[in-house]
Amino acid sequence: MKLSDKVQLCNLSPMRKFHPYAVDAVKRGRKIYHLNIGQPDIETPPAFFNAIRNFEQDVLEYAPSPGIPKLIHEIQKYYANIGIDYQQDEILITTGGSEALQMLMLSILDNGSEVIIPEPFYPNYNTFVRSAGGVICPLTTTPEEGYHYADREKIEALINENTRAIMFTNPGNPTGAVLTHDELRMLADIAKEHDLYLIGDEVYREFVYGGEPLMSIGQIAGIEDNAIIIDSVSKRFSACGARIGTIISKNKALMQQLLKFCQARLSVATLDQIASAALYSVDGSYFDAVREEYKLRRDTCVKKLHDIPGVVCSEPKGAFYLMAKLPVDSADNFQKWLLTDFEDNGETVMFAPGDGFYATPGKGSNEIRIAYVLKQEKLERAMDLLALGIKAYNARNN
Amino acid sequence: MKLSDKVQLCNLSPMRKFHPYAVDAVKRGRKIYHLNIGQPDIETPPAFFNAIRNFEQDVLEYAPSPGIPKLIHEIQKYYANIGIDYQQDEILITTGGSEALQMLMLSILDNGSEVIIPEPFYPNYNTFVRSAGGVICPLTTTPEEGYHYADREKIEALINENTRAIMFTNPGNPTGAVLTHDELRMLADIAKEHDLYLIGDEVYREFVYGGEPLMSIGQIAGIEDNAIIIDSVSKRFSACGARIGTIISKNKALMQQLLKFCQARLSVATLDQIASAALYSVDGSYFDAVREEYKLRRDTCVKKLHDIPGVVCSEPKGAFYLMAKLPVDSADNFQKWLLTDFEDNGETVMFAPGDGFYATPGKGSNEIRIAYVLKQEKLERAMDLLALGIKAYNARNN
Repeated sequence: MKLSDKVQLCNLSPMRKFHPYAVDAVKRGRKIYHLNIGQPDIETPPAFFNAIRNFEQDVLEYAPSPGIPKLIHEIQKYYANIGIDYQQDEILITTGGSEALQMLMLSILDNGSEVIIPEPFYPNYNTFVRSAGGVICPLTTTPEEGYHYADREKIEALINENTRAIMFTNPGNPTGAVLTHDELRMLADIAKEHDLYLIGDEVYREFVYGGEPLMSIGQIAGIEDNAIIIDSVSKRFSACGARIGTIISKNKALMQQLLKFCQARLSVATLDQIASAALYSVDGSYFDAVREEYKLRRDTCVKKLHDIPGVVCSEPKGAFYLMAKLPVDSADNFQKWLLTDFEDNGETVMFAPGDGFYATPGKGSNEIRIAYVLKQEKLERAMDLLALGIKAYNARNN
Repeated sequence: MKLSDKVQLCNLSPMRKFHPYAVDAVKRGRKIYHLNIGQPDIETPPAFFNAIRNFEQDVLEYAPSPGIPKLIHEIQKYYANIGIDYQQDEILITTGGSEALQMLMLSILDNGSEVIIPEPFYPNYNTFVRSAGGVICPLTTTPEEGYHYADREKIEALINENTRAIMFTNPGNPTGAVLTHDELRMLADIAKEHDLYLIGDEVYREFVYGGEPLMSIGQIAGIEDNAIIIDSVSKRFSACGARIGTIISKNKALMQQLLKFCQARLSVATLDQIASAALYSVDGSYFDAVREEYKLRRDTCVKKLHDIPGVVCSEPKGAFYLMAKLPVDSADNFQKWLLTDFEDNGETVMFAPGDGFYATPGKGSNEIRIAYVLKQEKLERAMDLLALGIKAYNARNN
């Protein structure tokens, strides 16, 4: 039986590539510190669980296809607080930001359509784009330049008749890069001039560590038809398992098409929507505390990395990831070796090798992504293991 | 900005087409009996809600991408009970049967690929097939023949080089048709001979009213690589709002591709999976009672329909839908009129007009789908309103 061409161009997750080696290492008694996946350890606000416990209907019915009105209303209020007014029909609830991206790509891409995305990028973008028949046109950045991508000339050089959109995660996964207001306005200007969708994956919006507050693409006037926001409760409220996301746009023609997908899959999980609505009652002090915690962790990571000779790493400005270039021949080989041959007091460490975050072949092979989602003490130990590992790895053949 | 060609070939839901007229009728004080949507009124087993209330972790984490092992294990046990042994990696948990269908179509269809589906069919199939670049090749059936579709000659006449799969809902939505064991074996034989996927959407498996028990395509030996089962807790346990489905196949190459989509969307909602695992502890008496209730309702519908002069309707053998041909010029016009001009003691009725269930233009225009998901007394009244409506509608210009 035939498989589709498009699915064969998709990849399995690079974050899970070394899972079998990890399982084997654990069997041999190793303790592994996980810096490889973005699962926060922050407590989910109890309001979520309380709302679910208080559900009192006898029949767990479908929710309305566009989302339950209460959750949409809470999201409207949240955006009104940052100065953006959205109507109810400009917000569709999705099963995580993931479904929002899948529906969006199917709605805007034909075979051969291109989406400009700064690389390194969130690897699952590739599956969403490829499965819709499109291709990622990478805007290559480098560790030496701090993964800076807002370069008008470079971006415009990539635009051609097949280009449909410019997409970015802001704050960035995997780099932690945050666009300045001027940079975002410049991107908006390009999108408007070339009649492109401008897709801002802003699921890490709360996690910015200093400097000016994050600007959302929804805050820029004049690009109402271009701008599409992807958002989610997963990271904001440490509620990844709820799978509640949203896609937001004032582009009525696009929203009408997206509604077809919402109706085709009937609805998003009812209880998770009710509980997610309750999350929006969390007050600002929750975010202040979480932000402060992540900032400390970021500082720890950056300091430890700067102490390792040969590492290239800029200070990330947001999210809870960073990319670093290591003084090793191959991050893939190094990670495998850390799981098969290395230990320090019975412990080792995992990260995500960098090549899976690039579309350009050969790029990122000595880079890694670190997700700083461990508590301070564990994080310090994990970073020390990384330093010890690099030293031992490079000393093997000396 | 451009929209994809494929999304523009998808449709909004025909079940929701008359929603604005219904809203208006309610504003004018009308009471509407809803036979138009398949939302069961049966109580969700309390085991679901209890499992959620007992969740005690502080962080609502992502579940594993293929699904939580406990739920997969419960599904393995359920299938073992009907004589089918599935390994853990032959079952993937999805966000409803809907996501299973979306992932499947993206995995097996290229632009121009064809899927043979008996019409009338579940309208959302069109969105899943179209959004993957494919097209439904309809196997047309008629009310006069009880929507019978298992005809080898007719099916083989539709197979060409673009055909990738034969797909059907069994028991059928919208027709309630149930394949006999011999018919299913014949379909399996065709799929094997022509190297096609055989996709059995078996979400209504428990709802068969008499005769031999339903045969699953998983029970047929020799088509392990062809057979794909779509299943869900939505109808089985009246848990539509949980959005928990599954895709099951022994075709390892296919499952490996599907896993790419599972990983790309990270996971299915954690709590809904935990709670759905608890549903499988419900004992057989639950299904017996539910089945008996639906059978009574079916009998009521069929009896009432047979009493209306000019209606063509066979007795459906399963699910909780039936299709009927009405003695009206247009089911669409009739439905609209029922909402705008008709009332009996302030009440009216809604069904789903038939044309949305057909791919062939012009087909089904005087047919309707009835979902018998109302309690006996309400159902009788709804059917009486239908009879009164037909009479009054046809008397308008006399």
